[in-house]
Amino acid sequence: MSAFATQHAAAGRRVVLITSGGTKVPLESRTVRFLDNFSSGRRGACSAEYFIDSGYAVVFLHRHRSLYPYSRMFSTINVMDALQLTSGDEASGSADEVLVNPQVLPNIAKVLKKYHEVKDGGLLLPIEFSTLSEYLHLLKAAAQALSTIGPKAMFYLAAAVSDFYIPASEMPEHKIQSSNGPLQLSLNMVPKILSPLVKDWAPQAFVISFKLETDAAILLDKARGALKNYRHQAVVANVLDSRRGYVVVVTPKTQDELILTEEDVKNEVEIEEMIVSNLTSAHNRFINQQAS
Amino acid sequence: MSAFATQHAAAGRRVVLITSGGTKVPLESRTVRFLDNFSSGRRGACSAEYFIDSGYAVVFLHRHRSLYPYSRMFSTINVMDALQLTSGDEASGSADEVLVNPQVLPNIAKVLKKYHEVKDGGLLLPIEFSTLSEYLHLLKAAAQALSTIGPKAMFYLAAAVSDFYIPASEMPEHKIQSSNGPLQLSLNMVPKILSPLVKDWAPQAFVISFKLETDAAILLDKARGALKNYRHQAVVANVLDSRRGYVVVVTPKTQDELILTEEDVKNEVEIEEMIVSNLTSAHNRFINQQAS
Repeated sequence: MSAFATQHAAAGRRVVLITSGGTKVPLESRTVRFLDNFSSGRRGACSAEYFIDSGYAVVFLHRHRSLYPYSRMFSTINVMDALQLTSGDEASGSADEVLVNPQVLPNIAKVLKKYHEVKDGGLLLPIEFSTLSEYLHLLKAAAQALSTIGPKAMFYLAAAVSDFYIPASEMPEHKIQSSNGPLQLSLNMVPKILSPLVKDWAPQAFVISFKLETDAAILLDKARGALKNYRHQAVVANVLDSRRGYVVVVTPKTQDELILTEEDVKNEVEIEEMIVSNLTSAHNRFINQQAS
Repeated sequence: MSAFATQHAAAGRRVVLITSGGTKVPLESRTVRFLDNFSSGRRGACSAEYFIDSGYAVVFLHRHRSLYPYSRMFSTINVMDALQLTSGDEASGSADEVLVNPQVLPNIAKVLKKYHEVKDGGLLLPIEFSTLSEYLHLLKAAAQALSTIGPKAMFYLAAAVSDFYIPASEMPEHKIQSSNGPLQLSLNMVPKILSPLVKDWAPQAFVISFKLETDAAILLDKARGALKNYRHQAVVANVLDSRRGYVVVVTPKTQDELILTEEDVKNEVEIEEMIVSNLTSAHNRFINQQAS
């Protein structure tokens, strides 16, 4: 990962680490049951594409099986329904071929071309996690690797990370038996990773956290509280029900509302394009300030 | 669903209801956090294919985004890596086409053909759930619909269903705040659905439950206990670590060990083929006994 960062930085590219998807918190060490956080990984997968379009290289730290850049276009359909069989030409001896039906996925050729360019260019480094502890370890390693490129590194922490966990020492080995009656769970607090990330692991980087609430009334206070606590650069604040059409980018001095209009929705504009545009500009200014 | 059952029964087909994947148990009514049960849905998706091969029509009650019959072949790869772009012929004006690379997915044409046959024949009725309560309601409705065909209906309950839940009345509306400190959860027992299913909803049907344990030592006792409690026809017992290569089909009078040999694995035989073969024979005998 350190080579990925230095190589892209040498080529004049910035590098963003995107975290995406929810973390799994096991309730048993041989895990049958776990706690999870709601997240399809859509925000992260989608943002990765826009960061690449903006000239960034992307480390994509994502939950196993969550949405993935480019192939996310298959997420709402059954792949099989997008495929059609063409009979081969017997005379020439050509075999049956399976084609993607362009009526089902009109953009497939364009998106596939882009996917291959990104892959061939080594612009996307995918890393998978499932559990909270995998996430925490990988984020630490990634942060230390990216610290080598200083302010050119951005952290875009969109993953839905659990606030609670059961320590290994308090976890039963085997599947909890329902014959033992109702279940009482005591969960400990997960240490806030933002604190060592900003202070110790990548102190020169441009760091963005995400704040998701279900109650709009407390959202901005929570976002400002996080900025004050961790002293990072920005919080993307959003409410569960409206997250696809409305976010607020909060920094210590500014507060930008990004809103998707009906016109935008009609034109298939995604709010992630606006978020990424806002933050890459802010990252620009941040780098220039550090240099001056 | 009732029309699906009677129509297939009239055509001489048996109908199996397969449940597949894990259930989601929300911790908040505007859900950010939830409890889940480990299950990719592989067992159910895979079994559905073998039941169809054995002449059954299948109601596939599965967790949203869990593995699906036929398209499960894409589950271990990124779809994009299986696709290739061919340039259209400019002279004839044909457009670019996107093909499935047969080197990545050698069986794709065969599987796709099968998928279309099954779809055109109306042999697979997919129904999705996410939460435990959706699962329980849909299973009840399905059981009552299938009861119309009596012993020709099979229930193959492979889903990983939570034993615990938080009642709506005890659930907070909004996202639980980590600033409130460590989390204490009290979970109630989920009523055992097998009991009304066997007694009231589909009393003539052939019912198979699944028992997954992490501790092999208690597995068979648990399976026999379930048979004794619910008086259904069979339990497929398996241990988490060995579930893909070893199961025991337990009935009140028999106990069949099904084991995948190294030779089987080499020949890509799946244990679900053996499970389905064992159970369809048992279902045969069950129907004949009812008739005599």
